Parts: sequence; C-alpha cells; structure tokens
Amino acid sequence: MNFASDNTSGAHPAILEGLAAANAGHVHSYGADPITEGVQAKIREIFEAPEARVYLVATGTAANALSCAVLTQPWGAIFCHRNAHIEEDECGAPEFYTNGSKLVLVDGPDAKMDPDLLARTIAHTGRGGIHNVQRGMVSITNSTEAGAVYSPAEVAALTDVARRFHLPVHMDGARFANALVAAGCTPAEMTWKAGVDVLSFGGTKNGCMGVEAVVIFDPKRAWEFELRRKRGGHLFSKHRFLAAQMQAYLADDLWLKTARHANEMARKLSEGISKVEGAKLIHPTDANAVFASFPRGAHKRANEAGAYYYLWPFDQSLDGPEDEPLAARLVCSWATTPEEIDAFLGHLA
Amino acid sequence: MNFASDNTSGAHPAILEGLAAANAGHVHSYGADPITEGVQAKIREIFEAPEARVYLVATGTAANALSCAVLTQPWGAIFCHRNAHIEEDECGAPEFYTNGSKLVLVDGPDAKMDPDLLARTIAHTGRGGIHNVQRGMVSITNSTEAGAVYSPAEVAALTDVARRFHLPVHMDGARFANALVAAGCTPAEMTWKAGVDVLSFGGTKNGCMGVEAVVIFDPKRAWEFELRRKRGGHLFSKHRFLAAQMQAYLADDLWLKTARHANEMARKLSEGISKVEGAKLIHPTDANAVFASFPRGAHKRANEAGAYYYLWPFDQSLDGPEDEPLAARLVCSWATTPEEIDAFLGHLA
Amino acid sequence: MNFASDNTSGAHPAILEGLAAANAGHVHSYGADPITEGVQAKIREIFEAPEARVYLVATGTAANALSCAVLTQPWGAIFCHRNAHIEEDECGAPEFYTNGSKLVLVDGPDAKMDPDLLARTIAHTGRGGIHNVQRGMVSITNSTEAGAVYSPAEVAALTDVARRFHLPVHMDGARFANALVAAGCTPAEMTWKAGVDVLSFGGTKNGCMGVEAVVIFDPKRAWEFELRRKRGGHLFSKHRFLAAQMQAYLADDLWLKTARHANEMARKLSEGISKVEGAKLIHPTDANAVFASFPRGAHKRANEAGAYYYLWPFDQSLDGPEDEPLAARLVCSWATTPEEIDAFLGHLA
Amino acid sequence: MNFASDNTSGAHPAILEGLAAANAGHVHSYGADPITEGVQAKIREIFEAPEARVYLVATGTAANALSCAVLTQPWGAIFCHRNAHIEEDECGAPEFYTNGSKLVLVDGPDAKMDPDLLARTIAHTGRGGIHNVQRGMVSITNSTEAGAVYSPAEVAALTDVARRFHLPVHMDGARFANALVAAGCTPAEMTWKAGVDVLSFGGTKNGCMGVEAVVIFDPKRAWEFELRRKRGGHLFSKHRFLAAQMQAYLADDLWLKTARHANEMARKLSEGISKVEGAKLIHPTDANAVFASFPRGAHKRANEAGAYYYLWPFDQSLDGPEDEPLAARLVCSWATTPEEIDAFLGHLA
Repeated sequence: MNFASDNTSGAHPAILEGLAAANAGHVHSYGADPITEGVQAKIREIFEAPEARVYLVATGTAANALSCAVLTQPWGAIFCHRNAHIEEDECGAPEFYTNGSKLVLVDGPDAKMDPDLLARTIAHTGRGGIHNVQRGMVSITNSTEAGAVYSPAEVAALTDVARRFHLPVHMDGARFANALVAAGCTPAEMTWKAGVDVLSFGGTKNGCMGVEAVVIFDPKRAWEFELRRKRGGHLFSKHRFLAAQMQAYLADDLWLKTARHANEMARKLSEGISKVEGAKLIHPTDANAVFASFPRGAHKRANEAGAYYYLWPFDQSLDGPEDEPLAARLVCSWATTPEEIDAFLGHLA
Repeated sequence: MNFASDNTSGAHPAILEGLAAANAGHVHSYGADPITEGVQAKIREIFEAPEARVYLVATGTAANALSCAVLTQPWGAIFCHRNAHIEEDECGAPEFYTNGSKLVLVDGPDAKMDPDLLARTIAHTGRGGIHNVQRGMVSITNSTEAGAVYSPAEVAALTDVARRFHLPVHMDGARFANALVAAGCTPAEMTWKAGVDVLSFGGTKNGCMGVEAVVIFDPKRAWEFELRRKRGGHLFSKHRFLAAQMQAYLADDLWLKTARHANEMARKLSEGISKVEGAKLIHPTDANAVFASFPRGAHKRANEAGAYYYLWPFDQSLDGPEDEPLAARLVCSWATTPEEIDAFLGHLA
Repeated sequence: MNFASDNTSGAHPAILEGLAAANAGHVHSYGADPITEGVQAKIREIFEAPEARVYLVATGTAANALSCAVLTQPWGAIFCHRNAHIEEDECGAPEFYTNGSKLVLVDGPDAKMDPDLLARTIAHTGRGGIHNVQRGMVSITNSTEAGAVYSPAEVAALTDVARRFHLPVHMDGARFANALVAAGCTPAEMTWKAGVDVLSFGGTKNGCMGVEAVVIFDPKRAWEFELRRKRGGHLFSKHRFLAAQMQAYLADDLWLKTARHANEMARKLSEGISKVEGAKLIHPTDANAVFASFPRGAHKRANEAGAYYYLWPFDQSLDGPEDEPLAARLVCSWATTPEEIDAFLGHLA
Repeated sequence: MNFASDNTSGAHPAILEGLAAANAGHVHSYGADPITEGVQAKIREIFEAPEARVYLVATGTAANALSCAVLTQPWGAIFCHRNAHIEEDECGAPEFYTNGSKLVLVDGPDAKMDPDLLARTIAHTGRGGIHNVQRGMVSITNSTEAGAVYSPAEVAALTDVARRFHLPVHMDGARFANALVAAGCTPAEMTWKAGVDVLSFGGTKNGCMGVEAVVIFDPKRAWEFELRRKRGGHLFSKHRFLAAQMQAYLADDLWLKTARHANEMARKLSEGISKVEGAKLIHPTDANAVFASFPRGAHKRANEAGAYYYLWPFDQSLDGPEDEPLAARLVCSWATTPEEIDAFLGHLA
C-alpha cells in the first residue's frame, strides 16, 4: 500500500529486458548508437514531427531545467503555476541552468494556470523596460501537480497568450502519458499542434528506471541543447542504456498501457475514498494522483496498517481529534494493484 | 576489435543482475532506500573512512564538476594538468558548476602534473591580491589521460604542495580501479592517506551502465554537495537503480577484477604493438590504455579488418606514406578479450 | 517641477567641491588612498560600529546585488517585499550576482513586509528538504518603495523573525537618510542594533553623483565582498572619486540636511495635494515620496504646465473623464524648492 | 615621481569642469539625457560609424566583461594573450559575466598575439565536438599589457584569423588613445575597418575620473548589452555624470592630446633609462608604459628619493647585489611632467 509517489515503484519488467537486450557487444558511445537513433525516429513518428530533435536525459529536473535554458535568456521571466515542479521541487535548478531567470508565478485552480491571469501577469512583467526582468517563456505542467489534466484546447488557450507576447512554450510532461490517455488525444494534438515548442517527455515515473526525452519541435534550438546537456554533465557515455529504456517504454504502446493502468487505479482509489464518511476530493482525479481529505481516524488506521503516502501539505499531524479531516496526496503507478487499493480502502472504512 | 574507449563496452552481467534484484517492490525514492544505504556503508568500509559521505551520480562529468563546485569558490583557480578531462573533455562543466572558476594548467609528462611546476603555478596565481583569480583547489586524475598511474607517493607529493597553499584536493578517479590495481595499494592509501579530500570514484568505464560515486572524506562539505546535486538535476528519483549498480560493482571485488583484467589486456596489447616494426610506445602502459605509434600501413590493415580506435591526436590521416608512424590511443575494458587482441596484432604485423 | 525621481536632480554643490579638492596629485588606486580610509573610519564612527567594513560602489543595484551575494548561497531564497527594488527594478541583478537565488515575495501595506507573513513565508519555504530552495536571507527596504518608513522597532520585528530561522538580514537603504531623519533615531539604532547585518547606504539619490556605501557589520564576510566587487567590475581604479563624494556627503551632516529637506518638501507637497478636491493619499508620506491620486483634469493641467512625474502604475492614461482620479508618484530631493511645489500645486487647483 | 600606473593620477581639469557644467537642473536619468545623446553621436562621428551603438560604464573591467558576454556563449572560448588584462587582472570578471567561458591563452612577444599561434590555438580548440569548449571570440588589447602597440595591419592579421573561424572580435582599448596616437591612424582604421566588432574605449586611465565607452559596431548586439549592463549594476541613474566626463574628454581632441603627452613622457623616460649603465629595455616603448631593467642600486636610490612604481614581476627584491638588474614597469599619464622624469633619471645615474 505505497502511494507516496509514482517513483517509489520499480521499473516495468519490459524495461529491464530492454536493458539486457541492449547490452551485447561494443557500440559507439554518447548517443551515436543504433538504439538511440531508433528511439529518436520512433518519437518523431509518435509525435508526427519529422523535424523534431530528441534528446535523452536521466532525470526530470534535468529535462526541465535544460529546456528552460534553451528557451529563455537569463533576464527572461519563466511564467509558470505557483505549484509547478520547476518552482517548488527542483531546488532552483531552472535558476541555475538559466543563470538566474526569475520564475514569475501564476495562479489557477488545480495547479492549472488561468489564461487571463497568465496574460495579465505577462503584461505586468517587463512593462518598465530595461529596469525589469523581461518576458521570457511559459512553462505548462501536464498533468499538473494537483493531478489535473489540461485538454489540448486548454493548452492552446495558454500558448495563445504566450504567442501574443512572442514567447516560447515548454511543457513539463513528467506525467505526459497520464495526461495523454486522460485527454484522449494524440501526442501531436497535446503538444506542437497546441503550440508547445519543447516537451519534457517523462519515462521514469511511468515505468522506466530513469529516462526522460526532451522533444524539441523547433530544430534551431537543438545544438544549444546538446552543448548545455554536455556542460551540465547529462550526456551519458554508455548512452544505449538510456535509449534501451525508452525503446522498451515505447514498444507495443507500453507507455500508454502503464499510464492507463495508473489512471484507472487512481480513479478506483478516488471513488473508494469518496465513499468514506467525511471524505472530500480536493482536486479532480484526472490522472494518476488523488488529492482528498478524510478523517484523521481513517489516516491513523491506514498508517498503522502500513499504508504509505504524504499528508499534503506536509505540516499536518496525525495527533488530534479523530474526525477532523486531513488532506493527503496518493499517487498510483504502473505497479499499483487493485488488491492494494481494496486493502487500503478497507482500512479507511 | 573495439579499442575506441572503455565506454563502448556494455555492462558486466553482474551489474544487470543487480538491477533485476533491486527491482522488486516499493522503496523510498531519492536515496532513502536500503540498497543506497548499504552501498554508502560499503564504500566507507572499503576506504577505511567511517566519516566519509558518499553520493551517487550517473556521469563522470557530473561527479567531477560537482566536486569542484564544493571545493572552490567561483573566483578560485582549479589547478590541473593541461590534458585533464575537466579541462579538455567536459565542455566547460567545471566552469558552469562553479559559476566561473578558471582552470589553470600545469604541465608534466604522461599527463601527470610535475609537483615543482604545480608549486610555481600556484605561487604565481593570486600573487596580485584582489585583482587576480585566487588559489582555489587542485585536481589530480588517476589514472591519467595518458594512461599513466600516480603512485600514492606521487599523489602525496602533489597534495603536499596543495597543503602548503591551504588548498583542497580532488581526484578524478573515472579510472580509479585501474590506477589502484596498477599501484598495488589500498583505496585509503591512494586517497585520504595521500591527502585527497574528494574522490570521483568511477564505475561506468569499468563495467557499470552509468554510475559514479563521489566520496567526500570531510563530511563538512556534504550538505552543500547534496544541494548542488539536486540543483544540477543529478539526484535520481528511483535512486535504487544507481545504487544497485554500485552494489554489484563492489560485491566480491568485481571492480578490482574487471580493472585487473582491463589492465592485463592493455599490457598484452602494448607488448604486442611494441614488437611491430617501427612501433613505439608514447606513454607507459600503466593502466588500461595504450598510447603508441606504428606505421600507417599497419593502421590501414587494422582499419580494413574492422578494428576501431582513435588516432591520437585526431587530426592525423590514413592517407600518406605506408611506413610513416601514426600515433593512436587504444583502450581496453572489462570486456576486452585476448582473442580480440591477438586478432588485432595479427593485422599489424 | 520635476518630481519623476530623486535621481533626476544633479549633485549637491558640496559634492562637486569635494571632487575638485580630491583631484590634486597622485594617490594609490583601488581604494588604498587616504580619502577612502577616512570615509571608512567616518562611517564606522557614524554607525558606532568599530568592527564594520565599508566598501564603496557607484550604483544602488551593485550595492544590493553584491550584498545579497555575500549573504546567501545560490540555492537560498531571498525574502523581500513584492515591491522591493531588488524584485522589481534591477533586471534580475540579485539573481545574476547570487548565481540563481530565488526571490520569495512577502506582502504587506505600504511596501512594508508584515512580520507574520514573513514568518509564514519562511516557514513554508524549504520545508521539503533537498527538493526545495533553502531559506537564505531577508532584505528590508527603508524607506520603502511606497515612501513609508520602518521604525527601528518595526525593523527589529522582521529581523527577529529572520533570527528565528538563522537568516542574515540586508537593508536596502538607497533612501536610508530619508528613513533615518523620518524615524528620528541613530544610524546604529536603525541597523545593527535592530538586527541588520549588511546595509546598502545610499548616497546617489540624496545629493551625490553616484556612490553608495556597503556597510558590513560582520567583518567575516568582508573579503568575499571585495572579491565579488572586483569580479563584478565595481572596484574603481581612481577610487578617490567615489570616496570624495562620500566624504563631502557626510561632512557637516550634509546627508542629514539634504534628506530632511527632501522629506519636508514631500510633506509640503503631500499636504498641498490632500487639499485638492477629489485627491487622496495612497501611502503615508513618511519620507521623500508622495503617492496620491487626484483628478485627471489636475494631472492634465500640471502636465501642460511642464510638470514631470510618473503615473503609478504606468499604464494609466491622461485620456478620459476629467474628474476620474489617477494615481501618481511624486518624489522630492535635496534640489526640490518650495517654489516648485507651490507652482505645481497652483496648477492642480 | 609616481609611475605606478596611469590610474594614480587624478582627472584632467577639463573633466571636472565638464561635470560642473553638467550639474545644473533636472534631466532624465539612466542615459536619456541630452549630454549622453551628444556623446553617443560624437563617438559615432569620431569612429565614422553611424550605425554603432555606444554605452558608458564606469570601469574597464565592466566594459571588457560585458563586451565578452555579448560576444560569446558560456561554452565559447575567449582567445586572448596570456598577459591580457581580462586573463590576469580582473579576478575572473569575464568568466562571471559570461557564466563560465574559458579563456584560452595565446603567446607572442610584447603581449601581442602571434597570428599563426592564434590560428593554431583556435583550430585545436573545439576540434572534439560536443565534448570540448567551443570556439567563441577573440580579444585583442591595444596598447598591450607590455606597452606595445598593434598597427591596424597587425590587428587585421588577427581579425582575419578570427573571421576564418567565424568568430567576433573584441578590442580592450583601456589605453586606446595611447595606441591610436602611436599608430598614427584613425579610430575607424584601428577598429571596424580592421575587423573589430566591439571596442572598450577607455577614458579613465587617460584623464577621466571613471568612464569607459563600449562601442558596438554591429547594432544587433545592443539590446542584449543594455540588459546585461543593467543586470550587472552598471547602469548609472545620474547618467549625465558619466556622459559629461566623456563629453569633456572628446571635446577639442583632449583625449588625443593627453595620450600624446603620456606617450611622449614615456619616450623621454625610456630614452633616459636606456642611457643608464646596465639598463635594458624589455619591451618597446610604443605607448605610455616603459618596461626596463636597470641595476638594483639605481632602484634603491630612486625609491629612497620617493619614486613610486612596480618591480615587474612583483616578486623581485630590493635586497641584493647593487649591480644586479631588476625589471620594472613605469607608466606615464596625462599628468606626468618632464620635471618629474628628469628628477627620476637624476636619481638613477
């Protein structure tokens, strides 16, 4: 009963099989191997983007921070939601990689930016000319830190605002697959057709060991990305082992299957919690994360039974009245089972 | 017959078995898992350094650049050999991670710094007070970029100079195992007992997929390292998969066995090349890399037979007189076989 | 009738006389001259801080950004008011000099941080350990961007919060003299006695050509400041010309007299505007800046008569109904005259 | 008898008069004043460069480091002479402003880069693709740190090499006027006609208080320069006081007259020293600095008589045999008098 994060699970068996298959013999290092080339071609095909450039890194923070660094100058603001991973969970990696950009925060429900607020925030920033940080780029997280999913139309509403100010757009897709299957659209519809310039295309949380692809739809920015990746220490020498994970992840739509499973598990969990007396969903369960509050007593029973997840925000306590509701985040992954969920729900009731 | 680098080989089977064994169930992410803790304890034991702090990253560039960043201020010079990896092969990663340190270059044969030159170079740097870059740190590569190995006494001769100027010392041990078995000493003797403060302890080139440990002998610097690692995007969420590689690497002295094998293969190769008419060793074959020149004709025959390695420097050409000697670098790894070497030597003769 | 800023005025005649007097003969460069040494001693005396270290730079942005850089690490948050100059008017200089700190914004009326909000904001930041930007430092502006003045007790209320979290405190005193004479306290009471560690002590806006002192009450941080100043290109070679301005500024309490004058002029202006039909003060006129709204018709008459000042915020328009109130900022300086103010008020009525 | 540097002298009286004249009344701040606009037009005229953009800063280090930052990416090498000011005397300011460029050093006599060596050094750098620092820019100092002057043809020989590699060229002209009058050419001939893209045009050492112009011949780079200047804290609010210095400096060819005077004084000093028994010039006295060795006894007599200058290198001692030659640097300025020189020479004999 571990719902702490989708990164507490291991790797899908197919990923490990892919690594084993890739291990034979000598190949060129630093990405000049056939598996890498195959993965790049496959991602271009999946995204219907024959001009796109594709790069692999091992962590989502690297994918996001490097993407920001090629999309904005140091004096450019990065417009993102107040709860975006790049703002709250990367210890300032975007600031480091951009050499000091300022993240300018936009509000909106369910960790989704409100397009009007985005427009007003951009308009406000840089209005004082040389004295201000300039307008740099927009970063959208899909699915969001609150488990919500932007539809392609909602993405386009934000990128339209960005375009009005001539700003490029990044999508943090650490949970891109979960968003995609929830929205029921194609990868192209969710990204470049909706105005996204660069995508962090997550693999780790959805069943890989550690691999994310950065998909750069405008190839002009590619060489700078390569230099920044190397300079950041993110170019693997035995690159085939990043590529083999991604190859297995994409083969036979594994990535869509694991995401669909995780989302279904979250829906099951969400529905079950909703039936608990005193329980309430805090955000819609669009993807693979459930945000809900339910009575402290239920939390205590679940904890005692060994369930593992985060009270959200962290600073709530299990000490206190039994019927007071405490909010929590519970994340499902490719490895979550219906049995786990049933067991967990059994402890809540 | 691939001698291009020790990173063109795959991973040792034991590494993949380690990954598979680590894959079961949920564990805490970001390094709070039992395999990581076991690896940290094991490295402290191997290095006889109970106070040391151990961190894992996926690339040697990350290990080196992060190490430099905790050892020097932005205005501190990094004293290293002109051919050091941090100077020649990391696209400025140390400059990026330190926010602009200057690498000040020291000469010496076989890519080993000469202690007297090091002393003079340090003395010269920073003599003008506030106007100059200050004296920051010393970085030693063992084994060197020329395949040579510093003995513990040679390391101590350099760290003595560093101490005289109150400078900390980093060792780039991307090929630490190769150096260690060549020198026939203990890990402690090669590092902290010889005055090294921080070690990049390589795994990737010597049989892993992609893992390097940073061993910080002075724990005061550890928290800053953790923050810089996270901020650099080098903290793995599914950290067990870095740790599992290192665990398998260290189990049953695998790391020493693979290094010993690679060194033996290099010696065999070196001896074989030496017997070729017109051949000459350029550097001593202390570890797993051979630097030798031999006639163009022999190079052409080897190339036609499918041998793969680098002319060194790169800008030599296979077009020209048959008997003119061309210099080359040939690197052996855990995966190199005697049969490959015999076949290769057969083509040279 | 120029109320655009206190930096549209020239230098007080005594400053130019000081420059002329300092010009004779050869002196050591880079601050090793007797005028510089005298100024440093004088500031230590004025602040009753015999251990303090004093450095001169030419701009307020340099003073602030360098101060931040010695007070926080790159991964440390700088807590400041949403309207602080370091947030809104320095094009990201603090981010640049700190190599990527994040400015975390605190609200409060009249551009003064609310101590409770500060405490909550600090507590919230860094609660997630390694994943978050850490708690770095607090920066207080006095007088504020809204023309208000913190009393020493109000400063201490903020520094108490900072101390609780072990954070150092910077004061942006671009208008320190204006704040000081308004508060009626000593320089020591406003700074180190109230818990301030480093002060940007402004000269430029209050009658100098271009000089600010950075007063570092804790001398441990001084050498790093010197290196950062040089590295930032802010160490003057003919340093006597920075020092001579500051010498003249401090002589015979000129700095207090010019500040008192500017504050009195602002009060006169504020009182005059208050009497205009439909006018309203937006912030208290504690120091030398007036924030007020009054009817568009009055603005138009003033503009036609040649008055120069900013509508605040910028994006208001002089086109529209005559009696609609528009907000404005009007700043007085050492050079503002009662006659100018009377003339201006005459146009409003 | 102060020959320590051209920055130990004060400002030419005309500069102070210019400041006084500029002081009257209110003007727009941050460079939107008529004096600044006049200076920009004047410099465009002097350089026959109607498209050039001109910016003022207060220090040479700021001018150089900001220039580098607009000419190279962080991963680009800056090719310069081993003794260039940007390498030896700016505490790493170029590394700071560029976010970590590497200065790659080129040798040549009299601190002038040898064009062939420059070509070979550039060719060597970046030959390894993504793994290496890339080729970024070339920086030429005129007059050099050894008091020599490049002719326009010599400048063009270097910029030709740069063009072959598609690299932009910066000229550090902290002593541009001294070089210009020595070469007897026009400002245009020494700069853009010889292939220079950005010039640091020095004022401080040649009679100003503290002002340097950055002349950007290609206006595409101008807006980035403005942002970097502001972000570096180098945009003056009371900008007229930088401009007034430069206005006075350029009026009636003052800048050429002071430079001619300084060069003549250096020639007189050089010739005088040459006649001293045991004396020898180390570099040609092309501009306003003399590099010569002469017997320790003569140094001791001069020192006892109050002469002030640097032994060069610093680490020579006045203790030792009387007739052993010690090398020294002696710099003349607009303020040096023939009488000082005669007096000094009298002590040597």
